[in-house]
Amino acid sequence: MDEAHVSFFQNILGDKGVLTPEDGIESYEQGWRGERGKAALVLRPASTDEVSKIVSYCAHNALAIIPQSGNTGLTGASVPDDSATQIILSLGRMNAIHDFDKINKSIHAEAGVRLSALNAALEDSALHLAIDLGADPCIGGMVATNTGGSRFLKYRGMRDHVLGLKAVLADEHGTIINALCPLHKNNTGFDITQIFIGTGGVFGIVTEISLRLSPLPQQSATALLVPKSAAHISDILNTIEHECGEYLSAFEGMSGESITRAIEHTPSLNSPFGQECVPDYAIMIELSRSWASRDAEQPLNDVLETVLSGLWEAHLDDALIGPPEKLWSLRHALSEGVQKSGTLFAFDLSFRRGQVMSFCDTMRESLKTAYPSLTLCDFGHIGDGAVHFNLVHNGSERVNEAELRQWVIGRATEAGGSYSAEHGVGPKNQIFYDLYTADEIKKTVRAIKTAISPANTSAIVV
Amino acid sequence: MDEAHVSFFQNILGDKGVLTPEDGIESYEQGWRGERGKAALVLRPASTDEVSKIVSYCAHNALAIIPQSGNTGLTGASVPDDSATQIILSLGRMNAIHDFDKINKSIHAEAGVRLSALNAALEDSALHLAIDLGADPCIGGMVATNTGGSRFLKYRGMRDHVLGLKAVLADEHGTIINALCPLHKNNTGFDITQIFIGTGGVFGIVTEISLRLSPLPQQSATALLVPKSAAHISDILNTIEHECGEYLSAFEGMSGESITRAIEHTPSLNSPFGQECVPDYAIMIELSRSWASRDAEQPLNDVLETVLSGLWEAHLDDALIGPPEKLWSLRHALSEGVQKSGTLFAFDLSFRRGQVMSFCDTMRESLKTAYPSLTLCDFGHIGDGAVHFNLVHNGSERVNEAELRQWVIGRATEAGGSYSAEHGVGPKNQIFYDLYTADEIKKTVRAIKTAISPANTSAIVV
Repeated sequence: MDEAHVSFFQNILGDKGVLTPEDGIESYEQGWRGERGKAALVLRPASTDEVSKIVSYCAHNALAIIPQSGNTGLTGASVPDDSATQIILSLGRMNAIHDFDKINKSIHAEAGVRLSALNAALEDSALHLAIDLGADPCIGGMVATNTGGSRFLKYRGMRDHVLGLKAVLADEHGTIINALCPLHKNNTGFDITQIFIGTGGVFGIVTEISLRLSPLPQQSATALLVPKSAAHISDILNTIEHECGEYLSAFEGMSGESITRAIEHTPSLNSPFGQECVPDYAIMIELSRSWASRDAEQPLNDVLETVLSGLWEAHLDDALIGPPEKLWSLRHALSEGVQKSGTLFAFDLSFRRGQVMSFCDTMRESLKTAYPSLTLCDFGHIGDGAVHFNLVHNGSERVNEAELRQWVIGRATEAGGSYSAEHGVGPKNQIFYDLYTADEIKKTVRAIKTAISPANTSAIVV
Repeated sequence: MDEAHVSFFQNILGDKGVLTPEDGIESYEQGWRGERGKAALVLRPASTDEVSKIVSYCAHNALAIIPQSGNTGLTGASVPDDSATQIILSLGRMNAIHDFDKINKSIHAEAGVRLSALNAALEDSALHLAIDLGADPCIGGMVATNTGGSRFLKYRGMRDHVLGLKAVLADEHGTIINALCPLHKNNTGFDITQIFIGTGGVFGIVTEISLRLSPLPQQSATALLVPKSAAHISDILNTIEHECGEYLSAFEGMSGESITRAIEHTPSLNSPFGQECVPDYAIMIELSRSWASRDAEQPLNDVLETVLSGLWEAHLDDALIGPPEKLWSLRHALSEGVQKSGTLFAFDLSFRRGQVMSFCDTMRESLKTAYPSLTLCDFGHIGDGAVHFNLVHNGSERVNEAELRQWVIGRATEAGGSYSAEHGVGPKNQIFYDLYTADEIKKTVRAIKTAISPANTSAIVV
């Protein structure tokens, strides 16, 4: 990188704010799934004003920015390419939390605040940001990818937790859009926060966020269900929603293939299934509520038991009400178990809720002839129609990853599905964005980008 | 209107699709609150393609369109001005409902479907579109204003119920943006539906909508509470949320002044208060759940009783658990009662939840000197921080409405509030949009408008 650029940034940010490759920046250059790039610089601004100055300078000098907060995304959107020309703009130093309002159930967080840090700060208040994820991202990245997670069914996704935000447009002024707002109801024209949610930095850098908080559950109950067959799952889901909709906070599907791998590769896992008797498919459900049981009230475990006894005869082969920690530890072990069991090709698909299982079944059949060395180890948020469609490769023949991706996503799209339920676009999905986004939508998004935020602040090209 | 224009529209839409002033179009020209304008024509397209042709023609010929669906809005956004040059584009004939998916809990409705018609069509399914409003708008207008309503606390607003939509951009092509989508999780780039939600037609005409449905409550319990004073309301709200958050579906405030007027002007109203013993302030709360009581489970009325008994000593002067119909009929009588009791100046404000009551108290004091002939008759969704801030005029001296509006909204804005909690902008609030929207936001919104949707399809100027 040109020395003049480095000096300019050092002037603005101080020495602490500028890291060159000589300073050791590898941890910034590597993504969660091992993606690797080469950055020209890492900039670490401490305020929205500093972000604005960086963006303005980069826009003037045609320097490309890759915004990065927690760097836990799964589509490579926070990782530079290997050109060693891009600048990583790390939000890591912007980690202040302000203005907690217990009555209003709101808080103001900077983009570099970790989800775990935010919820730790809220611990005494019995409130939390109700997004449940395997990783521990920062709030800025959660906005940029519109994260969903395991309790979406009850709490919805990130879009529904953002009351307002501050962002820097990717223009020559580094225009600061201040739409911070703690109000729950506010309809005073175009809600400009929306263009920054789920758009991975295309329209600029999100720096501060007004968040809506939810009561922390005081009681929960979990069960593992073994359905008679995949065909029963929709009925089970709809019955449980009808019988305890307000309580239902997770409805997670786990294929036997993924459970087996979790047991195999997680020695510490205290699985409810022996390795010999893993079912073809299991569902984990969670009921929760924001209050502890009152004297006269049925505890949630009893509610769960009543509901399951109604499902038993028609729909279930087995059911086990177990402690939440134990069942969640199985659920959370799936991802790593699958990853350790071979070369992984992971897809983040979604469908109408009634069509997840039939898509997986059809694909399991098709794989036998199309890719016999791949095993489907699916699991995921099937209560939302979302499935982590994982293909594990154990054979010796090479798999052409690009072809495989096009094949799976082509089939998913034909079935009315989405190639990205909750991980966003990123370089990994760029080709599918280009292929499957309607021309009118692409053209419109590009026109908005050109009009308000033309500079380069994202790994995604619209 | 030029005969050539009329012929063009008749050619596209047929005779049924074009109404001239000679056909009697007064009902289209008058708004819910009595606003009146003069339209050049009323066009009644039957499909998105027809809307596209209209918009394209109007864009080419610089004809202004006012979109209208239910015409129940409160800011005049669906009413033409009095120039007799604007064309009302009525979505009334686009009232088809397609693709109800019970398992996926989704449906596809055209913009002219009434909320009541949609929910009537869903009656047997135990599902509904969970937006509760005093009026009976159409789905298109609900999207364009991002309606909230009385049960926002539990179900959130319209934005959270739109899974996808189809719209016609206000450009010379009448570009159709087809972003219909029944998926619950879908993050494949900029969610373009967001620019049409709450923007009153500025970016074009919403014609079809993919909606998320919710389980219909099978049981509910309601109570009227009389707090010891307004200062206790925040504690009451937070305690109830902590004790039965998942159940709480309404937390509505009603000033004594508004209750008195409802009793006075609604002879059929079976009020729980005698006219003599109306309290200074009452709160109506509703608990609800999607299941009927199971044998071993505490009925909701008992839950309510338990929670209220915990609040009693510290916070309540009185509490009455009563049948939902009776209490809601009081709540729903407030609007009309207030309207009939004098000249009404209505404001739709919102604040942080802890600041609603103090704003009302302060203003009640200020009114005594600033506007002694006005009485504050406030009520509203105070669980969301929203208040229908109604000023009723009974004296003989004239009130300068423009000055009054600027005074009230100026004070609300100084207190960190919003001048439009849930009614949107519209001509009525245009002046406040111009005054209180940050320059950078106005400029950005205008740039988006110019780039993608430059023609005139809205009563709002951005």
